[in-house]
Amino acid sequence: MRIALDAMGGDNAPNVTVDGALAAAQELGVQTLLVGRQEVLTAHLGPDAATLPVEIVHAPDTIEMHDHPAQAVRAKKDSSIVVGLRLLKEGQADAFVSAGNSGAVMAASLLVLGRAPGIDRPAIGTVIPTLSGRTLLLDAGANADVRAQNMLQFARMGSVYVNTLTQTDKATVGLLSNGEEESKGNALTLEAHTLLRNSGLNFAGNVEGRDITRGTVDVVVTDGFTGNVALKSIEGTAELIQQLLREEITRGLRNKLAALALRRAFRRVRARLDYSEVGGAPLLGVNGTVFISHGRSSANAIKNALRVANEAAQLDIVGAINNAGISS
Amino acid sequence: MRIALDAMGGDNAPNVTVDGALAAAQELGVQTLLVGRQEVLTAHLGPDAATLPVEIVHAPDTIEMHDHPAQAVRAKKDSSIVVGLRLLKEGQADAFVSAGNSGAVMAASLLVLGRAPGIDRPAIGTVIPTLSGRTLLLDAGANADVRAQNMLQFARMGSVYVNTLTQTDKATVGLLSNGEEESKGNALTLEAHTLLRNSGLNFAGNVEGRDITRGTVDVVVTDGFTGNVALKSIEGTAELIQQLLREEITRGLRNKLAALALRRAFRRVRARLDYSEVGGAPLLGVNGTVFISHGRSSANAIKNALRVANEAAQLDIVGAINNAGISS
Repeated sequence: MRIALDAMGGDNAPNVTVDGALAAAQELGVQTLLVGRQEVLTAHLGPDAATLPVEIVHAPDTIEMHDHPAQAVRAKKDSSIVVGLRLLKEGQADAFVSAGNSGAVMAASLLVLGRAPGIDRPAIGTVIPTLSGRTLLLDAGANADVRAQNMLQFARMGSVYVNTLTQTDKATVGLLSNGEEESKGNALTLEAHTLLRNSGLNFAGNVEGRDITRGTVDVVVTDGFTGNVALKSIEGTAELIQQLLREEITRGLRNKLAALALRRAFRRVRARLDYSEVGGAPLLGVNGTVFISHGRSSANAIKNALRVANEAAQLDIVGAINNAGISS
Repeated sequence: MRIALDAMGGDNAPNVTVDGALAAAQELGVQTLLVGRQEVLTAHLGPDAATLPVEIVHAPDTIEMHDHPAQAVRAKKDSSIVVGLRLLKEGQADAFVSAGNSGAVMAASLLVLGRAPGIDRPAIGTVIPTLSGRTLLLDAGANADVRAQNMLQFARMGSVYVNTLTQTDKATVGLLSNGEEESKGNALTLEAHTLLRNSGLNFAGNVEGRDITRGTVDVVVTDGFTGNVALKSIEGTAELIQQLLREEITRGLRNKLAALALRRAFRRVRARLDYSEVGGAPLLGVNGTVFISHGRSSANAIKNALRVANEAAQLDIVGAINNAGISS
């Protein structure tokens, strides 16, 4: 397996992308193609990289975070995003990872790879830490307006994704709503509920916002608008609580000393909440293995994204979605 | 001011409702009418209450949590919810508080009190703790499907509410969306954005899920479906982090001792996150001061709901909303 990495993508590229690729190579043996400006990447790699499975593929252009996705993809055909996806399309890479402009990654994936058979709208699946494990939330932001049929496809793709990763066929699916009762929901989710109930999926009915982090189900299905709001509400709350804790436990010497004694426990809590441990969000429904990482990704987050992309490529999750015969 | 309290409403009624009313009377001097079954409430009140401004108003029926809201309101005209709202309507009470079936409180409020002039849909405004203070999120669940015009009305009501409480005219309003850029949103929020921009309100543009707990704006406007998902995602994340912390800081004696030393700091964090300190959620847009409390409210939560209801009635927030001349 070889993973093409958008080496120019993300707020801290190419520092963290190069470091992430080196760590993935060293610690996990993941082979990476660093896609970006040759001279910049060569300088960052340094001589130590010579023995590692990290290669540079030159891409002179870069799509910036503020660029208009569709326009930038058309205008910058030699950007790291477009070149990386072309490597995937042409079989020179088995997966593509980017922490860059996620709209551009979506647009370029559709353009270069195309949709998976039977899928009308690809979705971003975000992996949320829970007490007992992880929940896949999708769509986490690719499609602000969808139809119920799209949500059924999201559910099918999410189920195949989780089942393939966990090597089971038991993934449970919940429909995000404003109440657990079947009668709860807006017009869209009421319609989606009926489709899901008759889908043959392991459908657990409606779930509420708090079920996402409770891990009540394996896959939480929603539209990209609501999914994005939920995801960022979760992130914001984690931020708030960390700040409140920091304020309160540093009041006075006695607290500071006790907090110092607990620093490893706090570190473990942070690690269990940490999105960078999760890696990246699969873009499901395009014809290739694509992972989107947070723009603020650290080198550790990039390393983990390369790890999960490598795993998804090995398990051929895209093939599994294609073989599932999903269609509206 | 006299506040009618649904003494039978909530998972732990009438224990916590009676205790909350007694605490509000004792500590804050709030006058309460306990609405519910006379014999039950008399037994709970005990002789100590004789000197406190707490009276019982008999209501033989109770609407249960699982009752169908609209049907129950029609069928149970002598329920504590309907009787309490009738006291408000007839001027024998200045506000109504319930931790009972919130759908029934909504339905009964519309039936007994009616809508405020110019308001098509009442909204539930939930007060969310932030690092710097509080944010009003509305609609937090009353209306699963709305039009952009309804959201403009929510924004106007929310602004008047915050301005009246804080005695300013500076409340900032944000529109909950899947990105800060004006171009982000689903069809509904894009339309609402245009209305808000031209509304004369102190409109700060789109805000994201994480801005709710950041307190970026004073009022976050959204539809009741998205608002409910956001609210419960926030609650679920707070739950998750508390459980993770509890697990990690109780690993081993050393951790337990350090955690013991920090117990007051942890208690302060919990208090700053605690919804029961906030009191209740105003039901804005009906013709009377109504607060909805969490079904799981503690006596402390009931006490605080009575406090804010008393304050809202004193400030005549309903009058202020009526005088604002809101209309679509």
